[in-house]
Amino acid sequence: MFSLLRINTATGETRIEKYSSKDFLLGGRTLSSRLVSREVEATCDALGKKNKLFFCNGALAGTATSSANRLSIGGKSPLTGGIKESNAGGIVGSRMAEQGLRCIALEDAPTGDSAWKIVVVGKDGVQLLDGTFLAGKGVYEKSDLLTAQFGKDAGCITVGPAAEKLLMASGIACSDPHGVCSRYAGRGGLGAVMASKRVIAMVILADGKHKPAFTNKEQFKDESRRVVKLLKENPVSALFTKYGTAAMVDICQSLHVLPTRNFRHGVMEGAEKINAQTMYDTIKARGGEGKTQHACMLPCAIQCSNVYPDEGGKLLCSPIEYETMALMGSNLCLKNLDTIATMNRIANDAGVDTLDCGAAIGVAMEAGLADFGDDQAAIGMMEEIRNLTPLGRILGSGCKVAAKVLGIRHAPHVLGQAIPAYEPRGTKGMAMTYLSSPMGADHTFGFTLRDEAKPLTKEGKVGLSKKFQVIGSRMDAMGMCNFVRYAVRHDMTPLLNLIKSYYDVDITANEFDDFVKETLRIEHHFNTNAGITALDYRFAETFYDEAQPETGEKMDITDEESAQARQW
Amino acid sequence: MFSLLRINTATGETRIEKYSSKDFLLGGRTLSSRLVSREVEATCDALGKKNKLFFCNGALAGTATSSANRLSIGGKSPLTGGIKESNAGGIVGSRMAEQGLRCIALEDAPTGDSAWKIVVVGKDGVQLLDGTFLAGKGVYEKSDLLTAQFGKDAGCITVGPAAEKLLMASGIACSDPHGVCSRYAGRGGLGAVMASKRVIAMVILADGKHKPAFTNKEQFKDESRRVVKLLKENPVSALFTKYGTAAMVDICQSLHVLPTRNFRHGVMEGAEKINAQTMYDTIKARGGEGKTQHACMLPCAIQCSNVYPDEGGKLLCSPIEYETMALMGSNLCLKNLDTIATMNRIANDAGVDTLDCGAAIGVAMEAGLADFGDDQAAIGMMEEIRNLTPLGRILGSGCKVAAKVLGIRHAPHVLGQAIPAYEPRGTKGMAMTYLSSPMGADHTFGFTLRDEAKPLTKEGKVGLSKKFQVIGSRMDAMGMCNFVRYAVRHDMTPLLNLIKSYYDVDITANEFDDFVKETLRIEHHFNTNAGITALDYRFAETFYDEAQPETGEKMDITDEESAQARQW
Repeated sequence: MFSLLRINTATGETRIEKYSSKDFLLGGRTLSSRLVSREVEATCDALGKKNKLFFCNGALAGTATSSANRLSIGGKSPLTGGIKESNAGGIVGSRMAEQGLRCIALEDAPTGDSAWKIVVVGKDGVQLLDGTFLAGKGVYEKSDLLTAQFGKDAGCITVGPAAEKLLMASGIACSDPHGVCSRYAGRGGLGAVMASKRVIAMVILADGKHKPAFTNKEQFKDESRRVVKLLKENPVSALFTKYGTAAMVDICQSLHVLPTRNFRHGVMEGAEKINAQTMYDTIKARGGEGKTQHACMLPCAIQCSNVYPDEGGKLLCSPIEYETMALMGSNLCLKNLDTIATMNRIANDAGVDTLDCGAAIGVAMEAGLADFGDDQAAIGMMEEIRNLTPLGRILGSGCKVAAKVLGIRHAPHVLGQAIPAYEPRGTKGMAMTYLSSPMGADHTFGFTLRDEAKPLTKEGKVGLSKKFQVIGSRMDAMGMCNFVRYAVRHDMTPLLNLIKSYYDVDITANEFDDFVKETLRIEHHFNTNAGITALDYRFAETFYDEAQPETGEKMDITDEESAQARQW
Repeated sequence: MFSLLRINTATGETRIEKYSSKDFLLGGRTLSSRLVSREVEATCDALGKKNKLFFCNGALAGTATSSANRLSIGGKSPLTGGIKESNAGGIVGSRMAEQGLRCIALEDAPTGDSAWKIVVVGKDGVQLLDGTFLAGKGVYEKSDLLTAQFGKDAGCITVGPAAEKLLMASGIACSDPHGVCSRYAGRGGLGAVMASKRVIAMVILADGKHKPAFTNKEQFKDESRRVVKLLKENPVSALFTKYGTAAMVDICQSLHVLPTRNFRHGVMEGAEKINAQTMYDTIKARGGEGKTQHACMLPCAIQCSNVYPDEGGKLLCSPIEYETMALMGSNLCLKNLDTIATMNRIANDAGVDTLDCGAAIGVAMEAGLADFGDDQAAIGMMEEIRNLTPLGRILGSGCKVAAKVLGIRHAPHVLGQAIPAYEPRGTKGMAMTYLSSPMGADHTFGFTLRDEAKPLTKEGKVGLSKKFQVIGSRMDAMGMCNFVRYAVRHDMTPLLNLIKSYYDVDITANEFDDFVKETLRIEHHFNTNAGITALDYRFAETFYDEAQPETGEKMDITDEESAQARQW
């Protein structure tokens, strides 16, 4: 039996429900999307009382399995108008497991001027404490205050000042193993959804007593070790261990898909100044608190995270990921890792998604509000977001809205969510994936880039995208880190054996993929009910009309083709 | 035969085409919406080269018939994402008629950084002149410069600095009989469409030689006189002659539908400070250039327009209309006509719609950016729009976008277009109309307010709205002023006789209404093709969940009901 804790944010009532179905067993996106689909009226105002926010850990949360503690957060997105699952690392998933919880649901909403609350979940029950003292503070300060009050082992979840003002690019920050809320479920504006319920923080105390009741503990241990071995042997995982996701800078530059100058180009002169080797060397040279390798959750055999130090060796930002290096770096023609780290830190403090804000700044630069390549102007724009100025609010609303307000047609998004760090005209596989995701432009599933023999042609990309949509979604489906997929893409047996030895439940690989596909069907169905049509799954017209200079390619994927890639 | 002048704004090529079909005969919205439907790809970027902009005069343009010179401007709207017809008074319609033109089409688009052009149409042909000197200037200054260059009798069309930056609330200004570009086709962001084609002004020279070739001139004169008599005898038209549309302030206050405090209330304490009598008395007392009665076009027997003078008797703004008095007055809790006139003047100079910007300021006030009732802050916000600051751009994007950016759920719009000056929970007839218009929330057709026995109930409102949708659309359908409808609502014979005696074409009242209904069908079909679904024809959720205090009413119209009201 798996427990769902419901919290009515209007009345303060709480209730525990028990379920034994497979969606609760698997948890993660399997569960969050089903709960959203069942319980949230698709046409509702995402910032109104009819929306709900579900925090789900996964099947292996709280065990010693590597990379199994992602937290899937689901609800209706104010950014895309559709369903959203955004997941984060950190320690919240395991703390929930220790409290015996598979899911926490925030329901209903008090009036918009109600006092801020902190939801505290512990072995003795649920409390809604006054959170007024956190209001308006940055996420780093909130994190410190929460740690001071509840201990650094508590699993903390909070939102930044951007979410407090309901900005659509605001995310939800989860605490890492050091007690710092730096692990973001960044995409889709779920921070605003949490804030719309006047919940400014959630704390899962470290006093939970639940232990995994393994059916076959020895087998589970063996299979866990096998997963670690697979991760260490896999060349992609190993690359991430050394360089983190930053390894993608050189790869994308060479493929002409490194977003540059508001997604006008796919190559940035001087990209080597922000590539993985430069980052690695900088971190090593500066020493101090810097780390080239770092775990966002425990345990993790990949440790793709990092700690980027300033010149004096003090922590500047942790982590810096490739997507941010592209959207806040090359896309703005910025060639300085310190600038990117500074912007990333401000984004984390404001509580906004680095991709959506980076893309919005790109739009603002194209609109002439600052020059591409102007480091100080770019940092200044992030400070505008942090300070919630009018310009900051435009940028914190994501690139679609920013483009409308600033009169820019080349808005890099699908369904309102900024395109991740792969310029779509140069990779028709990723383009197909962007047009197929129920979440808006997304790279965390359907990641074809490493497997495209001919990235410039759309031929065969429906099938390729769908293949990788399943491969990627398998991880989300059970709360595993996405990067585990490389090690098990040809054989899910190790993970399925873990489920078997834990729960004594047999799930075949085919059954599992059916779950994944059904999740996608459910998500697309929600979007249709929400009023999203086939015509919404398009890039801005400029991507179709104007060739990307380096490849000479225009977008050529038709509505019919992308519809096929969404058909499950 | 009726002439269509096509101008390719990318190549500079021009072409005259001749048509004799009934849609060209009727002109107005009958023609503009058919041309948009036939020639504009519904899914295109409204600010891209695939959109077109059609300027159509009506069947009786250039004749001595009263109130017959409205100019219908049609295209795809960047504000609503659907079809748009927005019409204005002024002298452009007759100047086009004198040049033998029923329609001018702006097609294609040069690149966004191309030089601004002035399109000049005269008896000797079409010229595209450099318009760089107009860039960035306000509409009043542009108007003066155009008049200085082309004469005050020329029919001038221009856009403001807001349109130059592609703001979605930007309109198109047409010159009045005094040569001032003060007659706005304000709604739907068509100013941005014109600017996206890099056309900063159009001038129809006063050198046209075409005269109406009447089939039966004497009969036409008789019928024209009959229309004038009907207008003068009709009590509604007569009321407008004395007070202009401002007469609606008291009516709406008494019905509890005067938009107040961002459409939260339907009554404003102190509304009498901005009502028709106060305006009338103020204009009379100040004298000078003030006029309580004024014609926007010639000839006009209604003359509902006015000239509002400042304390020294100098023209401050002309005209001030009820919709502006509500959206920029009561909706912001402002109780000073000078404030409203000043805001209106700035709006006209910036080139933005007073309704969409007034509604956006209401949203900004609810977001706490200024206090309701703060005159100076409200004027300051208009200056932000005029100065194109970040806040100004937010406000100049209309209330839907402003609400998203500023985190406000109670956004008063349908399809992105601000609700006009009748709070919909207090008048279910107008609410039904707002939800039925293919143009977004609109009051210029389907005006039920004067004919609702029980405004608080939705019963019977599908039929009532549809009845008045036809009555109102008849006027747009042939380029007549909307206010003529009161005089002919029970009998269209006088207008149909004018067509007969002019063109020797018999159109029965039923045939005419079939044209009107077919136009609506065509418009809704365009919207469907553009991706607008039944779910988009809704108010913000708050209108359904929260009662308007004065009436205790919530919005209760269902999707099914509003769909019926859009079914033709």
